[in-house]
Amino acid sequence: MMDGHRPTNDRRDRAVIVGAGLAGSLAAVYLARRGYAVDVYERRDDPRLAPAGLAGRSINLGLSARGMSALREVGLLDEVLKRSVPMRGRVVHSPDGTVSFQPYGVREHQILHSVLRDELIAVVVDAADAQPGVRFHFGWRMQRLDRDRPSVTVVSEADGTSTEVTADLVVGADGAFSTVRQQLQHGLRANHAQEFLDWGYKELTIPVGDDGQPRVRLEALHVWPGEHAMMVAHPNLDGSLTCSLFMAFEGEPSLATLTSPAAIRAFFQQHFPDAEALMPHLVEEILDHPTGHLVTVRTAPWHHADRVVLVGDAAHAVYPFYGQGMNSSFEDCLVLDQCLAAHPDRGAALAAYQTARKTHTDVLADLSTQNFEDLRARVHRPGYALRAAADRVLNRLLADRWTPLYTMVAHTTTPYAEALARSRRQDRLLRWSAAGAVAAGTTLAYLTTRTLARAGRGR
Amino acid sequence: MMDGHRPTNDRRDRAVIVGAGLAGSLAAVYLARRGYAVDVYERRDDPRLAPAGLAGRSINLGLSARGMSALREVGLLDEVLKRSVPMRGRVVHSPDGTVSFQPYGVREHQILHSVLRDELIAVVVDAADAQPGVRFHFGWRMQRLDRDRPSVTVVSEADGTSTEVTADLVVGADGAFSTVRQQLQHGLRANHAQEFLDWGYKELTIPVGDDGQPRVRLEALHVWPGEHAMMVAHPNLDGSLTCSLFMAFEGEPSLATLTSPAAIRAFFQQHFPDAEALMPHLVEEILDHPTGHLVTVRTAPWHHADRVVLVGDAAHAVYPFYGQGMNSSFEDCLVLDQCLAAHPDRGAALAAYQTARKTHTDVLADLSTQNFEDLRARVHRPGYALRAAADRVLNRLLADRWTPLYTMVAHTTTPYAEALARSRRQDRLLRWSAAGAVAAGTTLAYLTTRTLARAGRGR
Repeated sequence: MMDGHRPTNDRRDRAVIVGAGLAGSLAAVYLARRGYAVDVYERRDDPRLAPAGLAGRSINLGLSARGMSALREVGLLDEVLKRSVPMRGRVVHSPDGTVSFQPYGVREHQILHSVLRDELIAVVVDAADAQPGVRFHFGWRMQRLDRDRPSVTVVSEADGTSTEVTADLVVGADGAFSTVRQQLQHGLRANHAQEFLDWGYKELTIPVGDDGQPRVRLEALHVWPGEHAMMVAHPNLDGSLTCSLFMAFEGEPSLATLTSPAAIRAFFQQHFPDAEALMPHLVEEILDHPTGHLVTVRTAPWHHADRVVLVGDAAHAVYPFYGQGMNSSFEDCLVLDQCLAAHPDRGAALAAYQTARKTHTDVLADLSTQNFEDLRARVHRPGYALRAAADRVLNRLLADRWTPLYTMVAHTTTPYAEALARSRRQDRLLRWSAAGAVAAGTTLAYLTTRTLARAGRGR
Repeated sequence: MMDGHRPTNDRRDRAVIVGAGLAGSLAAVYLARRGYAVDVYERRDDPRLAPAGLAGRSINLGLSARGMSALREVGLLDEVLKRSVPMRGRVVHSPDGTVSFQPYGVREHQILHSVLRDELIAVVVDAADAQPGVRFHFGWRMQRLDRDRPSVTVVSEADGTSTEVTADLVVGADGAFSTVRQQLQHGLRANHAQEFLDWGYKELTIPVGDDGQPRVRLEALHVWPGEHAMMVAHPNLDGSLTCSLFMAFEGEPSLATLTSPAAIRAFFQQHFPDAEALMPHLVEEILDHPTGHLVTVRTAPWHHADRVVLVGDAAHAVYPFYGQGMNSSFEDCLVLDQCLAAHPDRGAALAAYQTARKTHTDVLADLSTQNFEDLRARVHRPGYALRAAADRVLNRLLADRWTPLYTMVAHTTTPYAEALARSRRQDRLLRWSAAGAVAAGTTLAYLTTRTLARAGRGR
């Protein structure tokens, strides 16, 4: 329900959410369902009114099990899936031009869904907006948090007027550089670490072909691994794909060297020979599109008493290489809701939420960094493909007793740290089995040789 | 030269230093010597006018080789040593009441010097103030940094008036929660990690005895190691010692439980039985003194072009358990000066300074954390004392070819990371030698047995 910035005025507990991105808008849906009157303040304009697919900003996301679970719980999954393209596996493009398809899993439900970020937000904002007691206030920038009252002071981007909004609960959903977090933690013993990757990214496009057909297999995530640069492409409903080129900011080669059409073409011919033909606007896009940054944030505390709490990137920003940023943000909303249900005392609920989540999102940060290294190294280590194939075979043979790490992260809601621990147990088992197989094979060979030798002597 | 806040006005390069603590005041001395006109802005009052030894704030520091080297270079060492008490070794107090003395090193110069923080700052501020072109402005809080101009806007604590001061170089010496750093790094790909120890500290006093004599051996650092709490005491010229009690904030036992005279006495009788008798004001001091926090800061960048640079805690805050916080801050000033001398281009000098220092101060952060763990574990591992004794013996026998890590950190100016690397090489050598000794011993025993057996058979 949009009607300016006047706060709602009834007897329900009131929540103010700062940020109407993925986490903030889904938090609004959950808190409204739990009976809160919700006011959401967002610096930018209403995403539903903004022109779709602005150049260099049409980011695509891969929705997987955790995100789907959080959307399903509030009845939004079907609406989102209607606007998504299923990704049934990974198409890996090699520098030698060969292309291989790796299915995501052995089961039908083990697929991802590619959706435009703006479309996804629009669905969730629409759903929140339809709830009684939810009001969105776009074009208001958060300026100050009073964490004890609690209240936030917001400033109109249009005319600079400011107003202080009080609430029972303030939710910081304002991203990796959260102002809510900064003011929530000010003067406290807050442990905070932010680390930028020395690689950035450019958004590029693989448009639909001149024949109206997709230029590559559509229902897949396309990956161009590489040591010095990598690309990932997600499909869109119209048959185009949105591609992210990741490269170092500085050095040779780097984004800093891609400053002329000749340099861009030479670079692509060497590193992604099959991609250039797919991207007719490659040169202009690289020259014109802004360069994105990638940051990991680990932080604590996530909450202040029963008054303020963080969700999404404000609590845990991760590199995008495991495709879990949005999924883990959505999962935050689900877990926060479960904690509010389990603990009538909201202070206890917020503490339980941080305890339930932080261990796992810290592990996700590690996994996301590791996956970046793996994607860089993959081209040089054929063992990766072999191991992935072995994982699939074992998973098929042993079913639930053998689940590859990627499968647990992307296709289940097993908490991240538990998934990692289980994967390590499986790895140990595999090593022992391999050692056992080698030992058994050696013993067998020895016995066979000896038997043959004896038989020979016996003749 | 103090005369209000008017900036100096001549043709020399102008530096504005934010913060007149240890790093800021020594940086003023160095920059003045290098020809800069220097204005130093400090939020607090002039430390030379403040009443000395305010309750709970009379912090003592252990000056060691790096700090001495930086003071010597600008002719301040003798003045500081006059106000210091030499510490010739470590007195370790055990929970069973036994006390042992461990000399710091095998050479006469391997001693530390205990000095009150406020007295040390007063010496350095006096020295800076005596230089032409240096002006201190106390009672001015830094509000805003324009990192490109560069300039700082400062606000008078007395009347709230503000003024913008331009400079050629801004030096951020404003501590672990540096505002200069925050604004220097704003919007950049700044990697930043701050981590609080879940232990805090209280300053306590071992006053001079009723007979006018020190209650414990004066020329030493006193240490009460412990798993749940530890204390460190530095001597003062008047025969008293300043003691820091370190404990967890929460839990059992913790600072949170020391809320009554009975609880305090019971805790000390159990953990530091010999200390209670030394501290007649123990109960009041624990109840009245504020609790200090301990933070580690690792951050980058340390500089912006040729315009802004960080020194001291603003660049690298460390836990106090290696006694290197002040020493490494002073060393910053020396290294920065060397870089300015080596590089006529100031941007190159500031970059060289960060490169020369950051690796080492990051290692110092690790060492300081490790020393906290070691101090906690020490009481349970007699191996520590044994190893320390072995280190001293090897150092005495092998002289410069065997230097214990602590000796390199405290008594040399070997950069921290090099000290650690060398210590690891020595450790490996020791392990190999030990393994070699065992192997040699075993071989010898075998050969002896065999020879004896043969001799026996031969008879």
